[in-house]
Amino acid sequence: MIVISERINGLFKAIGKAIDEKDEKFIRDFAINQENIGANVLDINTGPGVDDPEGVMAWLVETVQEVTDVQLSIDTPNLKAMEAGLMACKNKAMINSATGETKKMEALFPLARDYNADIICLTMTEAGIPRDANERGEIALTMLATAMEYEITPDRMYFDPLVLPVSAAQLQGVEVLKALDMFKKLTEPAPKTVVGLSNISNNCKNRKLLNRTYMIMLMAYGLDAAIMDPFDEKLMQAIKTSDILLNKKLYADAFLKG
Amino acid sequence: MIVISERINGLFKAIGKAIDEKDEKFIRDFAINQENIGANVLDINTGPGVDDPEGVMAWLVETVQEVTDVQLSIDTPNLKAMEAGLMACKNKAMINSATGETKKMEALFPLARDYNADIICLTMTEAGIPRDANERGEIALTMLATAMEYEITPDRMYFDPLVLPVSAAQLQGVEVLKALDMFKKLTEPAPKTVVGLSNISNNCKNRKLLNRTYMIMLMAYGLDAAIMDPFDEKLMQAIKTSDILLNKKLYADAFLKG
Repeated sequence: MIVISERINGLFKAIGKAIDEKDEKFIRDFAINQENIGANVLDINTGPGVDDPEGVMAWLVETVQEVTDVQLSIDTPNLKAMEAGLMACKNKAMINSATGETKKMEALFPLARDYNADIICLTMTEAGIPRDANERGEIALTMLATAMEYEITPDRMYFDPLVLPVSAAQLQGVEVLKALDMFKKLTEPAPKTVVGLSNISNNCKNRKLLNRTYMIMLMAYGLDAAIMDPFDEKLMQAIKTSDILLNKKLYADAFLKG
Repeated sequence: MIVISERINGLFKAIGKAIDEKDEKFIRDFAINQENIGANVLDINTGPGVDDPEGVMAWLVETVQEVTDVQLSIDTPNLKAMEAGLMACKNKAMINSATGETKKMEALFPLARDYNADIICLTMTEAGIPRDANERGEIALTMLATAMEYEITPDRMYFDPLVLPVSAAQLQGVEVLKALDMFKKLTEPAPKTVVGLSNISNNCKNRKLLNRTYMIMLMAYGLDAAIMDPFDEKLMQAIKTSDILLNKKLYADAFLKG
Protein backbone atom coordinates (compact mmCIF):
# COMPACT_ATOMS: atom_id res chain seq x y z
CA MET A 1 0.00 0.00 0.00
CA ILE A 2 1.25 3.42 -0.99
CA VAL A 3 0.45 5.81 1.86
CA ILE A 4 0.02 9.36 0.55
CA SER A 5 0.03 11.67 3.54
CA GLU A 6 -2.58 14.40 3.38
CA ARG A 7 -1.11 16.42 6.22
CA ILE A 8 1.06 19.06 4.51
CA ASN A 9 -1.93 21.21 3.68
CA GLY A 10 -2.38 24.90 4.42
CA LEU A 11 -5.91 24.16 5.58
CA PHE A 12 -4.44 22.67 8.76
CA LYS A 13 -3.92 25.58 11.12
CA ALA A 14 -0.33 24.82 12.11
CA ILE A 15 0.73 24.34 8.49
CA GLY A 16 -1.07 27.51 7.39
CA LYS A 17 0.83 29.43 10.08
CA ALA A 18 4.17 27.88 9.10
CA ILE A 19 3.51 28.86 5.47
CA ASP A 20 2.65 32.44 6.45
CA GLU A 21 5.79 32.71 8.55
CA LYS A 22 8.00 30.77 6.08
CA ASP A 23 8.94 28.53 9.03
CA GLU A 24 11.21 26.05 7.30
CA LYS A 25 12.12 24.12 10.44
CA PHE A 26 8.47 23.36 11.23
CA ILE A 27 7.78 22.12 7.69
CA ARG A 28 10.95 20.02 7.60
CA ASP A 29 10.27 18.37 10.98
CA PHE A 30 6.66 17.70 10.01
CA ALA A 31 7.77 16.11 6.72
CA ILE A 32 10.36 13.89 8.34
CA ASN A 33 7.90 12.72 10.99
CA GLN A 34 5.57 11.55 8.29
CA GLU A 35 8.26 9.64 6.45
CA ASN A 36 9.36 8.01 9.70
CA ILE A 37 5.83 6.91 10.53
CA GLY A 38 5.38 5.19 7.16
CA ALA A 39 4.25 7.74 4.56
CA ASN A 40 5.46 6.82 1.05
CA VAL A 41 4.31 10.00 -0.69
CA LEU A 42 3.72 13.48 0.74
CA ASP A 43 0.85 15.51 -0.69
CA ILE A 44 1.79 19.18 -0.90
CA ASN A 45 -1.08 21.65 -0.77
CA THR A 46 -0.61 25.34 0.04
CA GLY A 47 -4.25 25.76 0.96
CA PRO A 48 -6.45 28.42 -0.65
CA GLY A 49 -5.95 32.16 -0.60
CA VAL A 50 -2.17 32.44 -0.32
CA ASP A 51 -0.41 35.36 -2.00
CA ASP A 52 1.96 34.15 -4.72
CA PRO A 53 0.74 30.53 -4.98
CA GLU A 54 3.54 29.64 -7.39
CA GLY A 55 6.28 30.90 -5.10
CA VAL A 56 4.74 29.28 -2.02
CA MET A 57 4.35 25.90 -3.78
CA ALA A 58 7.97 25.97 -4.98
CA TRP A 59 9.14 26.95 -1.48
CA LEU A 60 7.15 24.12 0.15
CA VAL A 61 8.54 21.55 -2.29
CA GLU A 62 12.11 22.76 -1.83
CA THR A 63 11.80 22.84 1.95
CA VAL A 64 10.43 19.31 2.15
CA GLN A 65 13.05 18.00 -0.28
CA GLU A 66 15.83 19.20 1.98
CA VAL A 67 15.03 16.39 4.43
CA THR A 68 13.34 13.61 2.47
CA ASP A 69 13.49 11.84 -0.90
CA VAL A 70 9.93 10.46 -0.84
CA GLN A 71 7.73 11.20 -3.83
CA LEU A 72 5.79 14.48 -3.65
CA SER A 73 2.23 14.91 -4.85
CA ILE A 74 1.56 18.45 -6.10
CA ASP A 75 -1.99 19.25 -5.05
CA THR A 76 -3.46 22.48 -6.43
CA PRO A 77 -6.22 23.58 -8.81
CA ASN A 78 -3.96 26.45 -9.93
CA LEU A 79 -2.20 25.44 -13.16
CA LYS A 80 0.74 27.80 -12.71
CA ALA A 81 1.30 26.66 -9.12
CA MET A 82 1.13 23.06 -10.39
CA GLU A 83 3.88 23.71 -12.91
CA ALA A 84 5.98 25.61 -10.35
CA GLY A 85 5.70 22.62 -8.01
CA LEU A 86 6.59 20.11 -10.71
CA MET A 87 9.56 22.20 -11.78
CA ALA A 88 10.87 22.31 -8.21
CA CYS A 89 10.65 18.51 -7.76
CA LYS A 90 14.00 16.72 -7.94
CA ASN A 91 12.40 13.26 -8.15
CA LYS A 92 9.40 11.89 -10.02
CA ALA A 93 6.36 13.88 -8.95
CA MET A 94 2.66 13.08 -8.77
CA ILE A 95 -0.04 15.42 -10.10
CA ASN A 96 -3.14 15.77 -7.89
CA SER A 97 -5.42 15.76 -9.80
CA ALA A 98 -6.96 15.51 -13.27
CA THR A 99 -10.60 14.60 -13.92
CA GLY A 100 -12.43 13.30 -16.99
CA GLU A 101 -13.29 16.92 -17.94
CA THR A 102 -11.78 17.70 -21.35
CA LYS A 103 -10.43 21.04 -20.14
CA LYS A 104 -8.66 19.40 -17.19
CA MET A 105 -7.13 16.66 -19.31
CA GLU A 106 -5.91 19.17 -21.89
CA ALA A 107 -4.28 21.25 -19.15
CA LEU A 108 -2.71 18.50 -17.02
CA PHE A 109 -1.83 15.62 -19.37
CA PRO A 110 0.82 17.75 -21.17
CA LEU A 111 2.38 18.51 -17.76
CA ALA A 112 2.38 14.81 -16.83
CA ARG A 113 4.11 14.10 -20.13
CA ASP A 114 6.64 16.93 -19.96
CA TYR A 115 7.62 16.29 -16.32
CA ASN A 116 7.29 12.48 -16.56
CA ALA A 117 4.97 12.64 -13.56
CA ASP A 118 2.44 10.18 -12.17
CA ILE A 119 -1.09 11.55 -12.22
CA ILE A 120 -4.16 11.07 -10.05
CA CYS A 121 -7.29 10.79 -12.21
CA LEU A 122 -10.65 11.42 -10.55
CA THR A 123 -13.40 9.53 -12.36
CA MET A 124 -15.80 12.46 -12.65
CA THR A 125 -16.75 14.74 -15.55
CA GLU A 126 -18.63 17.95 -16.32
CA ALA A 127 -21.77 15.86 -15.70
CA GLY A 128 -20.81 15.43 -12.04
CA ILE A 129 -20.23 12.44 -9.80
CA PRO A 130 -20.81 9.03 -11.43
CA ARG A 131 -23.76 6.99 -10.18
CA ASP A 132 -22.27 3.50 -10.17
CA ALA A 133 -19.22 1.36 -10.94
CA ASN A 134 -20.00 1.22 -14.68
CA GLU A 135 -20.04 4.99 -15.05
CA ARG A 136 -16.73 5.17 -13.19
CA GLY A 137 -15.29 2.56 -15.55
CA GLU A 138 -16.45 4.47 -18.63
CA ILE A 139 -14.80 7.68 -17.47
CA ALA A 140 -11.57 5.81 -16.69
CA LEU A 141 -11.59 4.32 -20.18
CA THR A 142 -11.94 7.77 -21.78
CA MET A 143 -9.10 9.09 -19.65
CA LEU A 144 -6.85 6.13 -20.53
CA ALA A 145 -7.48 6.68 -24.25
CA THR A 146 -6.82 10.41 -23.99
CA ALA A 147 -3.65 9.86 -21.94
CA MET A 148 -2.29 7.59 -24.66
CA GLU A 149 -2.28 10.57 -27.04
CA TYR A 150 0.13 12.20 -24.57
CA GLU A 151 2.28 9.06 -24.25
CA ILE A 152 1.26 8.61 -20.61
CA THR A 153 1.25 4.88 -19.83
CA PRO A 154 -1.51 3.36 -17.63
CA ASP A 155 0.90 2.43 -14.83
CA ARG A 156 1.55 6.15 -14.25
CA MET A 157 -2.19 6.84 -13.80
CA TYR A 158 -3.85 6.51 -10.37
CA PHE A 159 -7.60 6.21 -10.83
CA ASP A 160 -9.73 7.52 -8.00
CA PRO A 161 -13.30 6.12 -7.96
CA LEU A 162 -14.46 8.95 -5.64
CA VAL A 163 -15.29 7.73 -2.17
CA LEU A 164 -18.46 9.39 -0.86
CA PRO A 165 -19.73 9.75 2.72
CA VAL A 166 -21.56 6.64 3.91
CA SER A 167 -23.93 8.93 5.82
CA ALA A 168 -25.16 10.55 2.58
CA ALA A 169 -24.55 7.99 -0.17
CA GLN A 170 -24.67 4.57 1.44
CA LEU A 171 -25.12 2.69 -1.86
CA GLN A 172 -21.85 4.07 -3.24
CA GLY A 173 -19.57 2.13 -0.87
CA VAL A 174 -20.06 -1.11 -2.78
CA GLU A 175 -19.95 0.65 -6.18
CA VAL A 176 -16.51 2.05 -5.34
CA LEU A 177 -15.24 -1.45 -4.47
CA LYS A 178 -16.56 -2.80 -7.77
CA ALA A 179 -15.02 0.13 -9.66
CA LEU A 180 -11.55 -0.65 -8.24
CA ASP A 181 -11.82 -4.20 -9.58
CA MET A 182 -13.03 -2.84 -12.93
CA PHE A 183 -10.20 -0.29 -13.32
CA LYS A 184 -7.63 -3.07 -12.94
CA LYS A 185 -9.13 -4.96 -15.86
CA LEU A 186 -9.17 -2.04 -18.33
CA THR A 187 -5.60 -2.19 -19.63
CA GLU A 188 -2.43 -4.26 -19.59
CA PRO A 189 -0.37 -3.12 -17.72
CA ALA A 190 -3.18 -2.22 -15.32
CA PRO A 191 -3.59 1.36 -14.12
CA LYS A 192 -3.06 2.08 -10.44
CA THR A 193 -5.85 3.00 -8.03
CA VAL A 194 -6.13 5.57 -5.26
CA VAL A 195 -8.78 6.98 -2.92
CA GLY A 196 -9.23 9.95 -0.64
CA LEU A 197 -10.03 7.72 2.33
CA SER A 198 -11.52 10.07 4.90
CA ASN A 199 -14.38 11.06 2.59
CA ILE A 200 -16.12 7.83 3.64
CA SER A 201 -16.70 9.23 7.13
CA ASN A 202 -17.47 12.90 6.43
CA ASN A 203 -20.13 14.11 8.86
CA CYS A 204 -20.07 10.78 10.72
CA LYS A 205 -19.36 9.77 14.27
CA ASN A 206 -16.76 7.02 14.77
CA ARG A 207 -14.76 8.43 11.87
CA LYS A 208 -11.55 6.47 12.47
CA LEU A 209 -13.42 3.17 12.82
CA LEU A 210 -15.24 3.79 9.52
CA ASN A 211 -12.00 4.87 7.81
CA ARG A 212 -9.99 1.81 8.79
CA THR A 213 -12.82 -0.67 8.18
CA TYR A 214 -13.40 0.70 4.68
CA MET A 215 -9.63 0.78 4.05
CA ILE A 216 -9.46 -2.99 4.64
CA MET A 217 -12.29 -3.57 2.15
CA LEU A 218 -10.64 -1.30 -0.45
CA MET A 219 -7.36 -3.19 -0.07
CA ALA A 220 -9.15 -6.53 -0.53
CA TYR A 221 -10.40 -5.13 -3.86
CA GLY A 222 -6.89 -4.23 -5.03
CA LEU A 223 -6.39 -0.62 -3.95
CA ASP A 224 -2.80 0.56 -4.57
CA ALA A 225 -2.67 3.93 -2.78
CA ALA A 226 -4.62 6.11 -0.35
CA ILE A 227 -4.51 9.78 0.52
CA MET A 228 -4.83 9.56 4.29
CA ASP A 229 -3.51 10.47 7.70
CA PRO A 230 -0.41 8.39 8.51
CA PHE A 231 -0.61 9.52 12.15
CA ASP A 232 -3.73 7.34 12.63
CA GLU A 233 -2.02 4.38 14.31
CA LYS A 234 -4.89 1.91 14.13
CA LEU A 235 -5.30 2.70 10.44
CA MET A 236 -1.61 2.01 9.82
CA GLN A 237 -1.98 -1.23 11.81
CA ALA A 238 -4.98 -2.24 9.67
CA ILE A 239 -2.91 -1.62 6.52
CA LYS A 240 -0.01 -3.76 7.74
CA THR A 241 -2.38 -6.56 8.73
CA SER A 242 -4.18 -6.40 5.38
CA ASP A 243 -0.87 -6.52 3.48
CA ILE A 244 -0.12 -9.79 5.32
CA LEU A 245 -3.55 -11.31 4.73
CA LEU A 246 -3.43 -10.39 1.02
CA ASN A 247 0.06 -11.88 0.71
CA LYS A 248 1.63 -8.55 -0.27
CA LYS A 249 4.12 -8.80 2.58
CA LEU A 250 5.59 -11.98 3.97
CA TYR A 251 4.03 -13.16 7.24
CA ALA A 252 6.20 -13.06 10.33
CA ASP A 253 5.03 -13.25 13.94
CA ALA A 254 6.36 -9.74 14.47
CA PHE A 255 4.64 -8.22 11.42
CA LEU A 256 3.27 -5.30 13.42
CA LYS A 257 6.74 -4.22 14.42
CA GLY A 258 8.01 -4.13 10.81
CA MET B 1 -24.04 -11.24 9.09
CA ILE B 2 -25.13 -14.43 10.79
CA VAL B 3 -22.99 -14.86 13.89
CA ILE B 4 -22.65 -18.55 14.78
CA SER B 5 -21.20 -18.75 18.27
CA GLU B 6 -18.51 -21.40 18.68
CA ARG B 7 -18.49 -21.26 22.45
CA ILE B 8 -20.81 -24.11 23.55
CA ASN B 9 -18.09 -26.70 22.97
CA GLY B 10 -16.93 -29.35 25.42
CA LEU B 11 -13.34 -28.51 24.47
CA PHE B 12 -13.67 -25.32 26.52
CA LYS B 13 -12.82 -26.30 30.07
CA ALA B 14 -15.82 -24.67 31.78
CA ILE B 15 -18.25 -26.20 29.28
CA GLY B 16 -16.62 -29.63 29.56
CA LYS B 17 -17.05 -29.45 33.31
CA ALA B 18 -20.70 -28.34 33.05
CA ILE B 19 -21.37 -31.26 30.71
CA ASP B 20 -19.73 -33.75 33.11
CA GLU B 21 -21.76 -32.38 36.01
CA LYS B 22 -24.96 -31.92 33.98
CA ASP B 23 -24.98 -28.31 35.22
CA GLU B 24 -28.07 -26.98 33.45
CA LYS B 25 -27.92 -23.53 35.00
CA PHE B 26 -24.40 -22.91 33.74
CA ILE B 27 -25.28 -23.98 30.18
CA ARG B 28 -28.49 -21.93 30.19
CA ASP B 29 -26.77 -18.76 31.45
CA PHE B 30 -23.97 -19.19 28.96
CA ALA B 31 -26.44 -19.62 26.09
CA ILE B 32 -28.48 -16.58 27.03
CA ASN B 33 -25.36 -14.42 27.35
CA GLN B 34 -24.40 -15.27 23.81
CA GLU B 35 -27.83 -14.44 22.44
CA ASN B 36 -27.80 -11.13 24.32
CA ILE B 37 -24.41 -10.20 22.93
CA GLY B 38 -25.52 -10.75 19.33
CA ALA B 39 -25.15 -14.44 18.42
CA ASN B 40 -27.75 -15.53 15.83
CA VAL B 41 -26.95 -19.26 15.90
CA LEU B 42 -25.41 -21.35 18.67
CA ASP B 43 -23.09 -24.16 17.66
CA ILE B 44 -23.54 -27.19 19.95
CA ASN B 45 -20.54 -29.47 20.32
CA THR B 46 -20.18 -31.96 23.19
CA GLY B 47 -16.44 -32.22 22.64
CA PRO B 48 -14.71 -35.57 22.14
CA GLY B 49 -14.67 -38.55 24.48
CA VAL B 50 -17.98 -38.13 26.30
CA ASP B 51 -19.85 -41.24 27.42
CA ASP B 52 -23.22 -41.50 25.69
CA PRO B 53 -22.66 -38.85 22.97
CA GLU B 54 -26.28 -39.14 21.79
CA GLY B 55 -27.72 -38.55 25.23
CA VAL B 56 -25.34 -35.67 25.97
CA MET B 57 -26.09 -33.97 22.64
CA ALA B 58 -29.85 -34.26 23.21
CA TRP B 59 -29.43 -32.93 26.76
CA LEU B 60 -27.36 -29.95 25.57
CA VAL B 61 -29.92 -29.07 22.89
CA GLU B 62 -32.84 -29.35 25.29
CA THR B 63 -31.08 -27.33 27.98
CA VAL B 64 -30.22 -24.49 25.60
CA GLN B 65 -33.72 -24.48 24.12
CA GLU B 66 -35.24 -23.85 27.54
CA VAL B 67 -33.92 -20.27 27.41
CA THR B 68 -33.50 -19.30 23.76
CA ASP B 69 -35.16 -19.73 20.37
CA VAL B 70 -32.10 -19.03 18.24
CA GLN B 71 -31.14 -21.59 15.63
CA LEU B 72 -28.86 -24.40 16.85
CA SER B 73 -26.01 -25.88 14.82
CA ILE B 74 -25.42 -29.54 15.66
CA ASP B 75 -21.68 -30.03 15.49
CA THR B 76 -20.44 -33.63 15.74
CA PRO B 77 -18.70 -36.21 13.56
CA ASN B 78 -20.83 -38.93 15.26
CA LEU B 79 -23.80 -39.70 13.00
CA LYS B 80 -26.01 -41.00 15.81
CA ALA B 81 -25.29 -37.98 18.00
CA MET B 82 -26.09 -35.79 14.97
CA GLU B 83 -29.50 -37.41 14.59
CA ALA B 84 -30.17 -37.24 18.33
CA GLY B 85 -29.39 -33.51 18.24
CA LEU B 86 -31.59 -32.88 15.20
CA MET B 87 -34.43 -34.83 16.75
CA ALA B 88 -34.23 -32.73 19.93
CA CYS B 89 -34.36 -29.41 18.03
CA LYS B 90 -37.72 -27.63 18.18
CA ASN B 91 -36.80 -25.13 15.47
CA LYS B 92 -34.97 -25.44 12.17
CA ALA B 93 -31.51 -26.84 12.89
CA MET B 94 -28.16 -26.54 11.12
CA ILE B 95 -25.91 -29.54 10.43
CA ASN B 96 -22.19 -28.94 11.04
CA SER B 97 -20.84 -30.32 8.74
CA ALA B 98 -20.81 -32.26 5.48
CA THR B 99 -17.85 -32.35 3.08
CA GLY B 100 -17.53 -33.26 -0.61
CA GLU B 101 -16.65 -36.85 0.40
CA THR B 102 -19.25 -39.21 -1.05
CA LYS B 103 -19.60 -41.09 2.23
CA LYS B 104 -20.26 -37.87 4.15
CA MET B 105 -22.85 -36.62 1.67
CA GLU B 106 -24.64 -40.00 1.67
CA ALA B 107 -24.77 -39.93 5.46
CA LEU B 108 -25.74 -36.29 6.07
CA PHE B 109 -27.82 -35.16 3.09
CA PRO B 110 -30.67 -37.60 4.00
CA LEU B 111 -30.68 -36.09 7.52
CA ALA B 112 -30.79 -32.55 6.11
CA ARG B 113 -33.75 -33.63 3.98
CA ASP B 114 -35.62 -35.53 6.69
CA TYR B 115 -35.19 -32.82 9.34
CA ASN B 116 -35.48 -29.89 6.91
CA ALA B 117 -32.19 -28.61 8.27
CA ASP B 118 -29.67 -26.13 6.93
CA ILE B 119 -26.28 -27.71 6.29
CA ILE B 120 -22.69 -26.45 6.41
CA CYS B 121 -20.71 -27.85 3.47
CA LEU B 122 -16.91 -27.83 3.72
CA THR B 123 -15.36 -27.68 0.27
CA MET B 124 -12.90 -30.53 0.77
CA THR B 125 -12.86 -34.14 -0.43
CA GLU B 126 -11.03 -37.43 0.09
CA ALA B 127 -8.19 -35.76 -1.86
CA GLY B 128 -7.70 -33.25 0.95
CA ILE B 129 -7.74 -29.46 1.11
CA PRO B 130 -8.29 -27.66 -2.22
CA ARG B 131 -5.37 -25.66 -3.59
CA ASP B 132 -7.18 -22.64 -5.01
CA ALA B 133 -10.53 -20.95 -5.58
CA ASN B 134 -11.30 -23.03 -8.68
CA GLU B 135 -10.92 -26.34 -6.84
CA ARG B 136 -13.19 -25.02 -4.11
CA GLY B 137 -15.75 -24.03 -6.73
CA GLU B 138 -15.66 -27.47 -8.35
CA ILE B 139 -16.29 -29.23 -5.05
CA ALA B 140 -19.18 -26.87 -4.28
CA LEU B 141 -20.71 -27.62 -7.67
CA THR B 142 -20.55 -31.38 -7.04
CA MET B 143 -22.16 -30.91 -3.62
CA LEU B 144 -24.93 -28.71 -5.07
CA ALA B 145 -25.72 -31.33 -7.71
CA THR B 146 -25.74 -34.14 -5.16
CA ALA B 147 -27.91 -32.15 -2.74
CA MET B 148 -30.50 -31.67 -5.47
CA GLU B 149 -31.06 -35.44 -5.51
CA TYR B 150 -32.08 -35.09 -1.86
CA GLU B 151 -34.30 -32.06 -2.58
CA ILE B 152 -32.05 -29.76 -0.58
CA THR B 153 -32.23 -26.28 -2.11
CA PRO B 154 -29.03 -24.15 -2.43
CA ASP B 155 -30.27 -21.52 0.00
CA ARG B 156 -30.15 -24.14 2.79
CA MET B 157 -26.49 -24.90 2.06
CA TYR B 158 -23.70 -22.90 3.73
CA PHE B 159 -20.48 -23.38 1.75
CA ASP B 160 -17.27 -23.11 3.74
CA PRO B 161 -14.18 -22.39 1.57
CA LEU B 162 -11.87 -23.54 4.42
CA VAL B 163 -9.93 -20.69 5.94
CA LEU B 164 -6.30 -21.70 6.60
CA PRO B 165 -3.72 -20.12 8.93
CA VAL B 166 -1.99 -17.14 7.33
CA SER B 167 1.19 -18.23 9.08
CA ALA B 168 1.28 -21.53 7.16
CA ALA B 169 -0.68 -20.93 3.95
CA GLN B 170 -0.38 -17.24 3.14
CA LEU B 171 -1.47 -17.63 -0.50
CA GLN B 172 -4.82 -19.11 0.54
CA GLY B 173 -6.23 -15.92 2.06
CA VAL B 174 -6.95 -14.42 -1.35
CA GLU B 175 -8.14 -17.76 -2.78
CA VAL B 176 -10.77 -17.99 -0.05
CA LEU B 177 -12.03 -14.49 -0.90
CA LYS B 178 -12.29 -15.43 -4.59
CA ALA B 179 -14.04 -18.69 -3.71
CA LEU B 180 -16.76 -16.81 -1.77
CA ASP B 181 -17.50 -14.73 -4.84
CA MET B 182 -17.51 -17.87 -6.99
CA PHE B 183 -19.92 -19.81 -4.73
CA LYS B 184 -22.45 -17.00 -5.03
CA LYS B 185 -22.50 -17.31 -8.81
CA LEU B 186 -23.03 -21.09 -8.96
CA THR B 187 -26.81 -21.24 -8.60
CA GLU B 188 -29.94 -19.14 -8.51
CA PRO B 189 -30.95 -18.76 -5.70
CA ALA B 190 -27.34 -18.49 -4.54
CA PRO B 191 -26.04 -20.78 -1.82
CA LYS B 192 -25.01 -19.22 1.49
CA THR B 193 -21.42 -18.95 2.66
CA VAL B 194 -19.76 -19.51 6.03
CA VAL B 195 -16.25 -19.66 7.50
CA GLY B 196 -14.58 -20.85 10.67
CA LEU B 197 -12.99 -17.46 11.26
CA SER B 198 -10.33 -18.11 13.87
CA ASN B 199 -8.49 -20.59 11.63
CA ILE B 200 -6.90 -17.59 9.90
CA SER B 201 -4.85 -16.83 13.01
CA ASN B 202 -3.95 -20.32 14.29
CA ASN B 203 -0.42 -20.26 15.71
CA CYS B 204 -0.18 -16.49 15.20
CA LYS B 205 0.40 -13.57 17.50
CA ASN B 206 -2.11 -10.70 17.31
CA ARG B 207 -4.89 -13.25 16.77
CA LYS B 208 -7.83 -10.91 17.33
CA LEU B 209 -6.40 -8.25 15.00
CA LEU B 210 -5.95 -10.85 12.24
CA ASN B 211 -9.43 -12.29 12.87
CA ARG B 212 -11.27 -8.99 12.63
CA THR B 213 -9.24 -7.68 9.69
CA TYR B 214 -9.90 -10.84 7.69
CA MET B 215 -13.56 -10.79 8.72
CA ILE B 216 -13.98 -7.36 7.10
CA MET B 217 -12.45 -8.66 3.86
CA LEU B 218 -14.67 -11.75 3.89
CA MET B 219 -17.75 -9.59 4.37
CA ALA B 220 -16.72 -7.37 1.45
CA TYR B 221 -16.70 -10.55 -0.66
CA GLY B 222 -20.23 -11.49 0.35
CA LEU B 223 -19.81 -13.77 3.38
CA ASP B 224 -23.17 -14.64 5.00
CA ALA B 225 -22.17 -16.34 8.24
CA ALA B 226 -19.17 -16.99 10.48
CA ILE B 227 -18.47 -19.47 13.24
CA MET B 228 -16.74 -17.20 15.72
CA ASP B 229 -16.50 -15.84 19.24
CA PRO B 230 -19.30 -13.31 19.86
CA PHE B 231 -17.57 -12.21 23.07
CA ASP B 232 -14.81 -10.54 20.99
CA GLU B 233 -16.08 -6.95 21.20
CA LYS B 234 -13.86 -5.41 18.54
CA LEU B 235 -14.80 -8.19 16.14
CA MET B 236 -18.50 -7.51 16.74
CA GLN B 237 -17.82 -3.78 16.21
CA ALA B 238 -16.03 -4.56 12.91
CA ILE B 239 -19.06 -6.58 11.77
CA LYS B 240 -21.50 -3.78 12.58
CA THR B 241 -19.32 -1.24 10.80
CA SER B 242 -18.97 -3.50 7.74
CA ASP B 243 -22.73 -4.05 7.59
CA ILE B 244 -23.12 -0.26 7.36
CA LEU B 245 -20.40 0.22 4.72
CA LEU B 246 -21.83 -2.61 2.60
CA ASN B 247 -25.33 -1.13 2.88
CA LYS B 248 -26.72 -4.20 4.68
CA LYS B 249 -27.92 -2.07 7.56
CA LEU B 250 -29.14 1.50 7.34
CA TYR B 251 -26.60 4.10 8.44
CA ALA B 252 -27.37 6.03 11.60
CA ASP B 253 -24.93 8.09 13.66
CA ALA B 254 -25.47 5.70 16.55
CA PHE B 255 -24.89 2.54 14.53
CA LEU B 256 -22.51 1.10 17.10
CA LYS B 257 -25.18 1.23 19.77
CA GLY B 258 -27.69 -0.74 17.70
